[in-house]
Amino acid sequence: MIEKTITVELGPRSYDVSIGPGMLSQAGRAVADLGNVSQAVVISDSTVAALYGQKLFDSIKTADIPVTLINFPAGEENKNLSVFSTLMDKIFAITPAIDRNSVVIALGGGVAGDMAGFVAATALRGLRWLQCPTSLLGDVDASVGGKTAVDHAAGKNLIGSFHQPSGVLIDVDTLRTLPERELKSGLAECVKHGVIRDVSLLDFIADNTGQILACDPAVMTDFIARNVAIKAGVVTDDEQESGVRAHLNFGHTIGHAIESYLGLGKITHGEAVSLGMIAANQMSVARGMLAADDAKRVADLLDMLGLPIAWPGLDADKIWAIMQHDKKTVGGQVRMVLAQNLGEVAIYDDISQDAVAAAVASLETSPL
Amino acid sequence: MIEKTITVELGPRSYDVSIGPGMLSQAGRAVADLGNVSQAVVISDSTVAALYGQKLFDSIKTADIPVTLINFPAGEENKNLSVFSTLMDKIFAITPAIDRNSVVIALGGGVAGDMAGFVAATALRGLRWLQCPTSLLGDVDASVGGKTAVDHAAGKNLIGSFHQPSGVLIDVDTLRTLPERELKSGLAECVKHGVIRDVSLLDFIADNTGQILACDPAVMTDFIARNVAIKAGVVTDDEQESGVRAHLNFGHTIGHAIESYLGLGKITHGEAVSLGMIAANQMSVARGMLAADDAKRVADLLDMLGLPIAWPGLDADKIWAIMQHDKKTVGGQVRMVLAQNLGEVAIYDDISQDAVAAAVASLETSPL
Repeated sequence: MIEKTITVELGPRSYDVSIGPGMLSQAGRAVADLGNVSQAVVISDSTVAALYGQKLFDSIKTADIPVTLINFPAGEENKNLSVFSTLMDKIFAITPAIDRNSVVIALGGGVAGDMAGFVAATALRGLRWLQCPTSLLGDVDASVGGKTAVDHAAGKNLIGSFHQPSGVLIDVDTLRTLPERELKSGLAECVKHGVIRDVSLLDFIADNTGQILACDPAVMTDFIARNVAIKAGVVTDDEQESGVRAHLNFGHTIGHAIESYLGLGKITHGEAVSLGMIAANQMSVARGMLAADDAKRVADLLDMLGLPIAWPGLDADKIWAIMQHDKKTVGGQVRMVLAQNLGEVAIYDDISQDAVAAAVASLETSPL
Repeated sequence: MIEKTITVELGPRSYDVSIGPGMLSQAGRAVADLGNVSQAVVISDSTVAALYGQKLFDSIKTADIPVTLINFPAGEENKNLSVFSTLMDKIFAITPAIDRNSVVIALGGGVAGDMAGFVAATALRGLRWLQCPTSLLGDVDASVGGKTAVDHAAGKNLIGSFHQPSGVLIDVDTLRTLPERELKSGLAECVKHGVIRDVSLLDFIADNTGQILACDPAVMTDFIARNVAIKAGVVTDDEQESGVRAHLNFGHTIGHAIESYLGLGKITHGEAVSLGMIAANQMSVARGMLAADDAKRVADLLDMLGLPIAWPGLDADKIWAIMQHDKKTVGGQVRMVLAQNLGEVAIYDDISQDAVAAAVASLETSPL
């Protein structure tokens, strides 16, 4: 059987990420293996619940564990305190009542993982939880690191906590029902992993573009495992995001600001990160750190994956203003992760408004 | 100067609890000592903000740290997700925006500590925070252990997290403006500390009842320090409440249920705990563990402090049903902390409905 396991090493909070086809059918055994489980609560968005809720439910039932399925309406616009509050109403209405031996299972993409994780982090001051991501973004990004959050009107992920899961099950079969645009959104994070840590991952993507876009189970299992291993390495080095974990923000500083500027639903997270990486690399080239050919290589790859590498009409002043409100902005000083070479990045805190304006201006036209 | 400091030993999360008169005036220095502070946000309830908000504000201003005061309406009925959400709106509306070097200061009693602590635990996935409790309950209970929470319709403190503060400043002068009934409510937790760990604390209370009820600064500094030391010892042994920390729930299992049964505002937390301790001791005596004289000694002390030791008209069936929903109830099996001797308790998970019914029935009339 095709299956890979990556361990996220975090001392007493270490856990395994298991990747392969058919993984959702193993969820019941995974829950039982946690030990001392009084009941399971699956939290999912309405779309994913309709597709995979029953499969997960049946697997847990087969393991003789009481299980309840709780849904919330799909969409990032529902990742807020109000929907969180409704989920709390639902979880506390379960009979018999949940207790400290209850386990939350997050089923869905990044939004479901963030929401369900925040419920797990705060219900009864913290319950164990399993993540079953069903989007590529969830698989390679949200599944490692224990970040949970909801959005606030003032910005994304502003309210949340760090709460490591007890395990992650990535069923690559679920990628076949993922809308193509969402798949591509996840691929932006994979390109990011290559740029920050492993240039050979960029080769892998270039060599396997067709199988990746077709979600071939064997190639995806390999590919996701490589990405999870990169992210796990970074998170192990810095669980609380005080140092090198910031490297994962490559492409996200300007990317998040573009996402905010355009408004929810106008651009996927990955599309915004794609633009953010193009902008960041423009800054690296302008600083004389990154070869123009290397920046072009990344742009080529993003373009081949169907991700945007230009976006005319952005307002650099407004984007700069939004960057002031970024969670990672400290004391009003914008910090950015920039590539020194492909596979190697560092944090810079001497980012000027002019440099950002030039980078945003460069997005007016394709760099190719 | 009268001042005592107790260190809560929690490895990298250790912090000092400083107790004495005039402590609020030292807040600015305490914030500055944390290092790397971009701004301070004081979160307080409306009552305490009116009394001490300006004093705290001035102290922090004097230390040249930007500071904003945020209030919420006083009262346990406001310790919920809706008011929490309003506080998040306020904290994210501050200009310049809060960042990861911002510090939250919780000013007020247990409710303010729980609410502000939960804001600190979850804003930007966790900010440093200082606690400035202004009630005896806040001083001896909420100030140690890093528990933060809001209530849910299904029960108290059901939504929250563990988030240790960076320090605690207990200004005993604030006790002079505390309503007498609230002072007595806090004294119930002090009696509890004596019963679970230190019988000499019961003597101290008996010997100093007058000065305690008059909030004499020197006696209160001593007295609070003794209580903080007991609680700190328990929390050090068991930060996440999996074992001996449960001893702090002595008097709380039936007490919480009585509080829920009567409804918010009908009885103070300490009054309910007082009844819970009387009921628990009745069970200990019935089991042949505790001498009737020792149970009477505790009842005498509670009575002398003006706390209730009887409450006619309670419905034992309903109280039992509420106990099923207690956070500490696992798999439907009620667990209780019972005294084996004064100063020594243990956890029992063989609690029958009949035994609880007999204990609740005993509250019909005074045990004295």
